[in-house]
Amino acid sequence: MKIVIVGGVAGGMSAATRLRRLIEDAAIIVLERGPHVSFANCGLPYYIGGTIEDQSKLLVQTPEKLHQRFNLDVRTNSEVLAIDRKEKKVRINHQGKDYEETYDRLILSTGARPMRPPIKGIEQAENLFTLRDVPDAAAIVSFIENNDVQKASIIGAGFIGIEMAENLAARGIQVTVIERDRQILPPLDPEMAAPIEAVIKENGVMIRKGKTVTAFEEHGTKLVLDDGSRQAADLVLLSVGVVPESGLAEHAGLELGERKAILVNDQLETSDSAIYAIGDAIAVKQLVSGALTVIPLASPANRQGRMVADRIAGLTRTYKGTLGTSIVKAFDLAAAVTGLNEKQLRHAGTAYQAIHTSPPDHASYYPGSRQMTLKLLFDPENGRLFGAQAVGEKGVDKTIDVLSTAIKAGMTVSDLTELELAYAPPFNSAKAPVNLIGYAAENLLDHAVASIQWNEVDHLVKEGAMLVDVRTENEYTHGHIPQSVNLPLDSLRARLGELPDDRLLIVTCQVGLRGYLAARILTQKGFQVSNLDGGYKLYKTVFPDKVVL
Amino acid sequence: MKIVIVGGVAGGMSAATRLRRLIEDAAIIVLERGPHVSFANCGLPYYIGGTIEDQSKLLVQTPEKLHQRFNLDVRTNSEVLAIDRKEKKVRINHQGKDYEETYDRLILSTGARPMRPPIKGIEQAENLFTLRDVPDAAAIVSFIENNDVQKASIIGAGFIGIEMAENLAARGIQVTVIERDRQILPPLDPEMAAPIEAVIKENGVMIRKGKTVTAFEEHGTKLVLDDGSRQAADLVLLSVGVVPESGLAEHAGLELGERKAILVNDQLETSDSAIYAIGDAIAVKQLVSGALTVIPLASPANRQGRMVADRIAGLTRTYKGTLGTSIVKAFDLAAAVTGLNEKQLRHAGTAYQAIHTSPPDHASYYPGSRQMTLKLLFDPENGRLFGAQAVGEKGVDKTIDVLSTAIKAGMTVSDLTELELAYAPPFNSAKAPVNLIGYAAENLLDHAVASIQWNEVDHLVKEGAMLVDVRTENEYTHGHIPQSVNLPLDSLRARLGELPDDRLLIVTCQVGLRGYLAARILTQKGFQVSNLDGGYKLYKTVFPDKVVL
Repeated sequence: MKIVIVGGVAGGMSAATRLRRLIEDAAIIVLERGPHVSFANCGLPYYIGGTIEDQSKLLVQTPEKLHQRFNLDVRTNSEVLAIDRKEKKVRINHQGKDYEETYDRLILSTGARPMRPPIKGIEQAENLFTLRDVPDAAAIVSFIENNDVQKASIIGAGFIGIEMAENLAARGIQVTVIERDRQILPPLDPEMAAPIEAVIKENGVMIRKGKTVTAFEEHGTKLVLDDGSRQAADLVLLSVGVVPESGLAEHAGLELGERKAILVNDQLETSDSAIYAIGDAIAVKQLVSGALTVIPLASPANRQGRMVADRIAGLTRTYKGTLGTSIVKAFDLAAAVTGLNEKQLRHAGTAYQAIHTSPPDHASYYPGSRQMTLKLLFDPENGRLFGAQAVGEKGVDKTIDVLSTAIKAGMTVSDLTELELAYAPPFNSAKAPVNLIGYAAENLLDHAVASIQWNEVDHLVKEGAMLVDVRTENEYTHGHIPQSVNLPLDSLRARLGELPDDRLLIVTCQVGLRGYLAARILTQKGFQVSNLDGGYKLYKTVFPDKVVL
Repeated sequence: MKIVIVGGVAGGMSAATRLRRLIEDAAIIVLERGPHVSFANCGLPYYIGGTIEDQSKLLVQTPEKLHQRFNLDVRTNSEVLAIDRKEKKVRINHQGKDYEETYDRLILSTGARPMRPPIKGIEQAENLFTLRDVPDAAAIVSFIENNDVQKASIIGAGFIGIEMAENLAARGIQVTVIERDRQILPPLDPEMAAPIEAVIKENGVMIRKGKTVTAFEEHGTKLVLDDGSRQAADLVLLSVGVVPESGLAEHAGLELGERKAILVNDQLETSDSAIYAIGDAIAVKQLVSGALTVIPLASPANRQGRMVADRIAGLTRTYKGTLGTSIVKAFDLAAAVTGLNEKQLRHAGTAYQAIHTSPPDHASYYPGSRQMTLKLLFDPENGRLFGAQAVGEKGVDKTIDVLSTAIKAGMTVSDLTELELAYAPPFNSAKAPVNLIGYAAENLLDHAVASIQWNEVDHLVKEGAMLVDVRTENEYTHGHIPQSVNLPLDSLRARLGELPDDRLLIVTCQVGLRGYLAARILTQKGFQVSNLDGGYKLYKTVFPDKVVL
């Protein structure tokens, strides 16, 4: 058996090493276009920023070590030019010379390349970088070290854009992030991205949302934006997304899908059953929606690589789909997401319910606890989980990992209330964030309470709803939503007579908990009432300029 | 509707507040024997140690605040003396006076009390404490502050014993922990408890295992052990477990089970359907085994309290059982467990397979990563998860929470390989600890590799097996298992001729990964081979005195 693997990073190398463990006598050839295999691509921003000091730490494996340990034939600087499916062979270029290799099975792990939009002047920009591999990172470091880089512009506020903003700022560079969308971090919903935007600004990075770059002037040192303004930049990083690297597959006549991603079946076979494809180059099934999409992430790529090896070795495996769990660090905060977000659900026309809570990461009576913001999306009929997002200083990764596992298991919000998570005061609360949001969601499903979202307040108040802030007088005085009246929760039972029974009451508090208690009292007393989900805190996060201080 | 709740901590108070939210007009009376309700019992050791500086932080709620917010009638220092089931009333003692209250529904949340074995001289011990509530904690602090406490003995090395060891040591006290068992932390298996024992000793706490206290002499300042030795102690903490506080239920003729725990059905009703019981006083179904047992933990108690309120309000709920997830901090380490441990599986005669791994909590190329030890127990036939344990500096809580969720969902080891956990270098590895142990377990299920455990090595070597250490010569020289020979993995393929084909080969490395690679090569070459699960590291953890240094 002779297996040829195109691409020696993440999925490709997972496939290669697993294949050797399963088939000691197979011939396994890994062809990598670049100079390195199995490098830590997710570590590149932190190498540029200096957190990872030594470039060698990024190089997890070398061809020599892989030969020694796994008896792999790893060839770097070896670009596959074409696939001859009939003859089952590939043509390879190495240092200017072409040659051929036959295969019994071919695995395409070609990845995705940074998008490069045809902006005017982009070809003349001499300070423009993208970030995909170690040479890219080394080029950025070298450019910074050899030029007087004072100002950098990052085009695109996705995960890499935000990681690079932090890491360029760590080198003392004045960074501006330009984002076409009206929010940063598109995988998150806007209210969940807002705290990240705030912390980035607090750390001196400028953010310009809703702007696109229309031209590069003066060899890239001046960016022209669509509002006509100009932005000086000694260095420009282009991070506006990636496109599947599927040219090889396309020329070989393999079926491609949307965004030219390679189509595979649930065995990860392409339209040619001798050729598998894995990683960022393929279209995958989104696990919650069932829709085909592109989810370029390291973990699924690794998993797919291993699975293809298992399949080739004759083991029974099925690739069920990808959930798309991801996380980004931004200074002291982390933001994470799993499953579908609200924008995707709305776009797909799926009925959903959203809920936000602000639990502490561990018992608040034990030192060092921090409040996170947690969002859950679920089916309003049966409570099935659609997705979750979290942002905060601590516990974000843990909370999203538990929710990702719950979504994968097909759990409902009621199941969340029954999860038993490890509790001692330094680690969690007796009612964990995941339990609490399960309870809160269950209340909505049971119609124990109705809620409205942060983006519905202004409209409903305009329509005649009365906004009742049930926090203490002191809290209210320190900041509240416009047109809200203050009626503290602990005196609510005694002051019911002050409330109109012919208007919708929107109750609100700091994070939504006291509002819920107020809503329960008012509902049982016959008032028409909705609780403002996420409370004043969430409203203020999204509309810092609207609140009355 | 009039509901009377006996016990105002954890489950009792969860029931009371939830009841108010569901039934605004119910009469809800909470009767608490002690002076406080809703206190943070899990925080008590940290108050004694000084991490939680202010006693008021432990008092999460007061009767006044509960009245104001929830319109609850909370009565402290009110002991329920008897239940009259026929008349549906309870007799209460408050400050020496008895009175009665009727009920429509009664909820027993009486908790569990520290065991007090009838050791000779225990009644004369004036320096002996147990730890259940705030007065207990205050008494310990006061005793330490008013006496010259230099030496403390803790009897019982369970979770509370270990937390108290750390916290008394934090006050500069020389602590000795005396444990009857041959390991500390009985909820863990011995090899998983061993690192905690090591870190405790490193921090100056003495541990005496396999010893019982047979007498207290000199008013408790001298402990006599069963080996005849004597131990001086200015303060003694008795933490040898708890017993359900079920006297009230017993006298009322309610059915009790083993260890006198109150028996309830899956609606948490006792044998009298007007009386519910929750928390540490009841027997629950262990979720994995289905067996009735006692699991005194805060999180299930809270959940049960809420569920009883839901039931009383007419909502449909079923208590499915308890998994028993728990965690303990010990200096810089944490140890956590969920589901069944190996001892319980062996005791129940359940066929199981165990596996150990030592993954980093996050990508090792990103600064600050720490290796944890992770153990998984599963069904050798179908891979269903039975339980998990972890010990380490970082990521232990997260890993066990994900595994607890997976066990609750009825997942198999193959499902673990498909979990998508939030990955960026500061938070995890592309292959998370949970994925990796899933892969390793899947290899065992697929018979891709056979393994043996740390406690089988000596016996098998004696029986004629050859122990092959495949680490580097340098690693081997720095410490190895007795009678092992060194044959580094990277030269294994070239040196197969040196190995006998008529003996069992046990391959071992540092943590088990290279051993697995070696086992795959050897198996495919026709050798009879098993990998030492957990490798040299785990063996050395349990047998520090056996290894050759």
